[in-house]
Amino acid sequence: MDMPLSYKDISSFHPPQRTLMGPGPSDVHPRVLAAMARPTIGHLDPAFIDMMEELKTLLRYAFQTENALTFPVSGPGSVGMETCFVNLVEPGDKVIVCRNGVFGGRMIENVRRCGGVAVVVDDAWGMAVDPNKLEDALKANPDAKLAAFVHAETSTGAQSDIKTLVDIAHRHDCLTIVDAVTSLGGTPLKVDEWAIDAIYSGSQKCLSCTPGLSPVSFGARVVDAIKRRKTPCQSWFMDLGLVLGYWNAGKRTYHHTAPINPLYGLHESLVMLKEEGLENAWARHALNHRALKAGIEAMGLRFFVDETQRLPQLNAISIPQGADDAEVRKRLLNEYQLEIGAGLGEMAGKIWRIGLMGYTSRPDNVLLCLRALDEILGAAGADIKTGAAEMAAQNVYASRQAPTA
Amino acid sequence: MDMPLSYKDISSFHPPQRTLMGPGPSDVHPRVLAAMARPTIGHLDPAFIDMMEELKTLLRYAFQTENALTFPVSGPGSVGMETCFVNLVEPGDKVIVCRNGVFGGRMIENVRRCGGVAVVVDDAWGMAVDPNKLEDALKANPDAKLAAFVHAETSTGAQSDIKTLVDIAHRHDCLTIVDAVTSLGGTPLKVDEWAIDAIYSGSQKCLSCTPGLSPVSFGARVVDAIKRRKTPCQSWFMDLGLVLGYWNAGKRTYHHTAPINPLYGLHESLVMLKEEGLENAWARHALNHRALKAGIEAMGLRFFVDETQRLPQLNAISIPQGADDAEVRKRLLNEYQLEIGAGLGEMAGKIWRIGLMGYTSRPDNVLLCLRALDEILGAAGADIKTGAAEMAAQNVYASRQAPTA
Repeated sequence: MDMPLSYKDISSFHPPQRTLMGPGPSDVHPRVLAAMARPTIGHLDPAFIDMMEELKTLLRYAFQTENALTFPVSGPGSVGMETCFVNLVEPGDKVIVCRNGVFGGRMIENVRRCGGVAVVVDDAWGMAVDPNKLEDALKANPDAKLAAFVHAETSTGAQSDIKTLVDIAHRHDCLTIVDAVTSLGGTPLKVDEWAIDAIYSGSQKCLSCTPGLSPVSFGARVVDAIKRRKTPCQSWFMDLGLVLGYWNAGKRTYHHTAPINPLYGLHESLVMLKEEGLENAWARHALNHRALKAGIEAMGLRFFVDETQRLPQLNAISIPQGADDAEVRKRLLNEYQLEIGAGLGEMAGKIWRIGLMGYTSRPDNVLLCLRALDEILGAAGADIKTGAAEMAAQNVYASRQAPTA
Repeated sequence: MDMPLSYKDISSFHPPQRTLMGPGPSDVHPRVLAAMARPTIGHLDPAFIDMMEELKTLLRYAFQTENALTFPVSGPGSVGMETCFVNLVEPGDKVIVCRNGVFGGRMIENVRRCGGVAVVVDDAWGMAVDPNKLEDALKANPDAKLAAFVHAETSTGAQSDIKTLVDIAHRHDCLTIVDAVTSLGGTPLKVDEWAIDAIYSGSQKCLSCTPGLSPVSFGARVVDAIKRRKTPCQSWFMDLGLVLGYWNAGKRTYHHTAPINPLYGLHESLVMLKEEGLENAWARHALNHRALKAGIEAMGLRFFVDETQRLPQLNAISIPQGADDAEVRKRLLNEYQLEIGAGLGEMAGKIWRIGLMGYTSRPDNVLLCLRALDEILGAAGADIKTGAAEMAAQNVYASRQAPTA
């Protein structure tokens, strides 16, 4: 057979050691990497089934929920998203989708591919979802069945007030779907207290595991809605009726072969979250954000999102005059082994996205990033104040280290 | 919040060291485990993009194809299966599905959930797909658009003659979808020579990587068919039109975040396959099967599948009189750290499935399995001949080690 020659020349891959300060994946802790290298066991092994139960318990803690139906979907966050929509949307169903960035747009795509009717509530990119607009849309569409919104818009760094949005949707008898891909573990998120019905997240953001798993949780009203479906779920793989038989305790039905080693990693990352404590993790993300902010502002750079709506773990910075977007990111990667994120969609070329998620959210990374930006932007003659950023960030940490209880 | 107490008591998970001789996952080589523990990098990192290109090249070698559209789907084999069906089946399309085990049944589910009409061609479990029945079904259904069959039925251990089945389907102007989850890397499979149109596999069988990835390959006629679709693909995640923009060389469009560390593992397992040589890997699977067969027959046990239709990498053995299915498997696991597979679906309680796939396919494992079965079945008073199995297998290896070139 006339194969291309090149396969013969391929050998083992050894990735460079980067510092991941983009929109995800974030840096993976050595403990999590080590966990993924443990021996593979069977997906029906009693030891694996015990680990699955632990995973579900740990995820309930991370989500702050007692939902029985809480587990990691065997696919990236976009499979978690699609799992929510294909199970809850039937042909003809009307769904209010709030869009303030790329991922709201993806929700609309999901609704349409399920045969649903998407009523789109638009907010400017970089703004939180406006609760008044949601209320107006619900009043204008009393037949809406669902409302969907993104907690932490990864494309802009804006945070929306999920508690308020869910309250409004519930007053209009709508179930809610919430995207928490970038928020879980990094900023307060309380599934039960906020009465979220369906939620999905990702493993590679504030949980600092490898990408490829999507933690989800569903409340009792979702389970009821699924049981009342008139049509079968259009996806075999994502059909919660089938998946349930697999992830449920007790007698297990074979559905698919779980991604064993990545699940070891997720388990370890959740054990680490538990050891730190969820509230402490939120506080750490907030502190490192404040330090980065002090440095960014000392440099004369500007945040894209208003302070009141800003995510601590994903910092969108307007690209300053005189800086070449691609060139700066290339130099950061090549000279500092530092990855930051480009703008996505309509934000391309306008912002950088600096992630401080999970294991990445550490003072040394904040200082590295500020120093590297200071040097590269300064050398390029961009419109910034050089030499002040690191000290400004240090001061935030120093004031935090004043005597505490 | 009133959380269950138990999450506080969960600590790091340390799996037992098993020998995996079930239907998958198979044992993962230490090189592959080590690869998965390498530092995570970004999915848009130039180093990662280079690795993706290498992965595609290595998969083309494994599949024996020059198809440009060859890549690993970011999900288990069942997502690979669904990717084939949601892209090729439109509402109303007629699909001939040959069913001779569990996975043909799953194909039927997929067709129906896409709004297609499945014409089912049934063969007995444990038998190969009968080409004459396929021909008859195609004659009776001249409007059929697709034909789908399983190369290696994981639920029974039967192997079908894909080259012949594809020929027949093509003579009736049908495109073909082939399930190669258990065959890729373990038994001859030649995508281009056999003219297979769409094929999917899994990472955790004869490739001996962690479960959770599904290598796929699509020929030019599939790409044409997708371009001619009248309706959008019902899945956003699996829409090949979108996935293509992500896995294609050149300018990459963000689609989803690839499962970085599992892909390191798959890359390494394919490098190992290349180092061994595909034909040598097939020969190794065949040899270890012959040794196991000699031992099984010396013990007086019987294969479920006729010799001419038997997969070397998945050995279905009829459970002998006097043996308690669950008890035997439990003792193998607890006393020998050895996993073998139970029967699936209608074969439950009737067969055991002994996998010799990928890194598992080694003489020491064959001998361990024979010794353990001999001891446990002998002690239980099952209807077998004890004490002869290991020697019979040894003889196969010894005769193979006669002088060779």
